[in-house]
Amino acid sequence: MPFLFPDHPTIGIFGFGAFGRLTARHLMDHFALFVHDINADAVSASASELNLRAADVVTVAQCDIVILAVPVTAMRSVIATISPHVRAGAIILDVGSVKMEPARMMLEGLPDHVDIIGTHPLFGPQSARAGISGLKIAICPVRGRQFCRVGAFLRHVLGLKVFVVTPEAHDREAAVVQGVTHLIAKVLVQMGPLPARMTTASFDLLVQATEMVRYDAPSVFWAIENANPYAGAVREQFFELATGVRDQLADNPCAKEAF
Amino acid sequence: MPFLFPDHPTIGIFGFGAFGRLTARHLMDHFALFVHDINADAVSASASELNLRAADVVTVAQCDIVILAVPVTAMRSVIATISPHVRAGAIILDVGSVKMEPARMMLEGLPDHVDIIGTHPLFGPQSARAGISGLKIAICPVRGRQFCRVGAFLRHVLGLKVFVVTPEAHDREAAVVQGVTHLIAKVLVQMGPLPARMTTASFDLLVQATEMVRYDAPSVFWAIENANPYAGAVREQFFELATGVRDQLADNPCAKEAF
Repeated sequence: MPFLFPDHPTIGIFGFGAFGRLTARHLMDHFALFVHDINADAVSASASELNLRAADVVTVAQCDIVILAVPVTAMRSVIATISPHVRAGAIILDVGSVKMEPARMMLEGLPDHVDIIGTHPLFGPQSARAGISGLKIAICPVRGRQFCRVGAFLRHVLGLKVFVVTPEAHDREAAVVQGVTHLIAKVLVQMGPLPARMTTASFDLLVQATEMVRYDAPSVFWAIENANPYAGAVREQFFELATGVRDQLADNPCAKEAF
Repeated sequence: MPFLFPDHPTIGIFGFGAFGRLTARHLMDHFALFVHDINADAVSASASELNLRAADVVTVAQCDIVILAVPVTAMRSVIATISPHVRAGAIILDVGSVKMEPARMMLEGLPDHVDIIGTHPLFGPQSARAGISGLKIAICPVRGRQFCRVGAFLRHVLGLKVFVVTPEAHDREAAVVQGVTHLIAKVLVQMGPLPARMTTASFDLLVQATEMVRYDAPSVFWAIENANPYAGAVREQFFELATGVRDQLADNPCAKEAF
C-alpha cells in the first residue's frame, strides 16, 4: 500500500447511496475519505455512523482521487459541477454498471490534467455481505497511466479479481451478464410470492440470484437496460429464443397425443 | 429399517435411465433390486456395473415394491404391461416430474389389490452429486396406506425432506418451480456460450441453475411443460410479465433524455 500510494492521497466520494457507502466501508481503513451527496441529511447520518467527514462539493472535488458513485443518469451534471475544481494529476473514476457512456462523459467533461478510469465492481451490497475478497471488478483505462496502481491496490490490498478491459468489451459482456439477470429477476419478483416448499436446487439458485439484485436501486436497472448500447439486442435475443421455446411447446402434437 | 420393512421386500425398477440408476444406487444397500429397461443392452451394462440383476418384465412386475422410472409419455404402456403380473399388497410408485397424469393412469390401469403412490424426488443426477441427504421429495398417496412407511423410510433412512401432498397441490407448485426453471435454462443454453469472465455472483447462480437441468432427458422437459396442467398458464404469466418489462424499457423517455 505505501508503495502504491506513497503520498497518502485523499479520496472524495460523490454519492452516498448503497454503493457509495459500500465503497467507503472498504476504503476507510486505507485513505482519508470525504463524502458528499445531494441529499445532505442522508449523508450526514450515514457518514457519522462510519465516522467519516461529510464535506462540501469543492472539498470532495479537490481530493487526489474522486469516486463518482452516482447514478449514470446524474453523472453528466456531477461532472460539470466538479470539473472546475479538480486538481492536476488527480484520478477521477466512476463505479457505474455501464462503462461506455460514463467514459465518454468523463472524457468530454473533465480537464486534460486529470487521469480518468471507468470501474465496475461486479458486486453489490448483497453479494458483498461476506466480504469483497475474491469478488470481481472491471477497470477501463480512459486517460492516463495511474490505472496501474489503482488496479494493483484493488488486487493486492482489497483482494479483488481485476479485469482490465475497454469500455466496449465491458458493455458487450455486461449486456448479457447483467441485462439477462436483471430482466429475469424483474419477472420473478412480479410472479411472487414464489413457492418455497417443494423447490428444487436449481429453482433455489434462481431465487437466490433474484434476491441478490431485487433491492438494487431502480436507477441501476435502468442503466443496465438502457445505457448499455448492447442491452437492447441481448433482450431481443432473449425474447426471440423464449418465444421459440413457447411456440415449440404449443405446436408439439406428440406430447398431446401421449395422453 | 427392519421395523419399517420387516419382510425384506424385493424392489423392481422399470426404466434404467439417469433417474432409474440414481434410484438404484440409493436403494441397493437396503433392498434386493431387480431392474428392467426396454433397452436391454443399456440396462445390462449399467446393472452389472452396480452389481445388480437385470431381469425380465414378469420378475420385476412381481416385486413387493415396483418403481416406474420411465418417461411420463411411456407410463401408460408400462402400466398395461405390468398390470397382469403385480402381486396383491404390492406398492407401485412412479418418480415422474408431474403427478396428476401418472396418478390417474396408475389408478385406471392397475388392479385394486395394489397400493399406489406418486413420488417426485425434487432432485436429479446433478443436484444429487454430493449425496441425497437433506434433499426434498414429494409423495402423493393415491391408494392404500403403505405411503406411511415409504415416507418414513425416505425420511429416516435416506434423510430426505418429505412433503405429503395431493397430486393437484404438487402440480400447481411444480408448474412454477420446474416450469420457470427449465424455460429459463432452455433460453440461456441457446444464448451460449455465456460470458464466464466478468460475471456477477447473481449471474453465476443463474448459470449454475442452468447447468443443473440442461442435461436432463428431453422427456423430462416435455413432461414438465406439457403434462403439468398448470404449466401453460405459468408460462403465459412469465411471458406477459417479461413483455411488460420490455415495453416499459422501450417506452421510457426519461432514460433516453438523460443522455
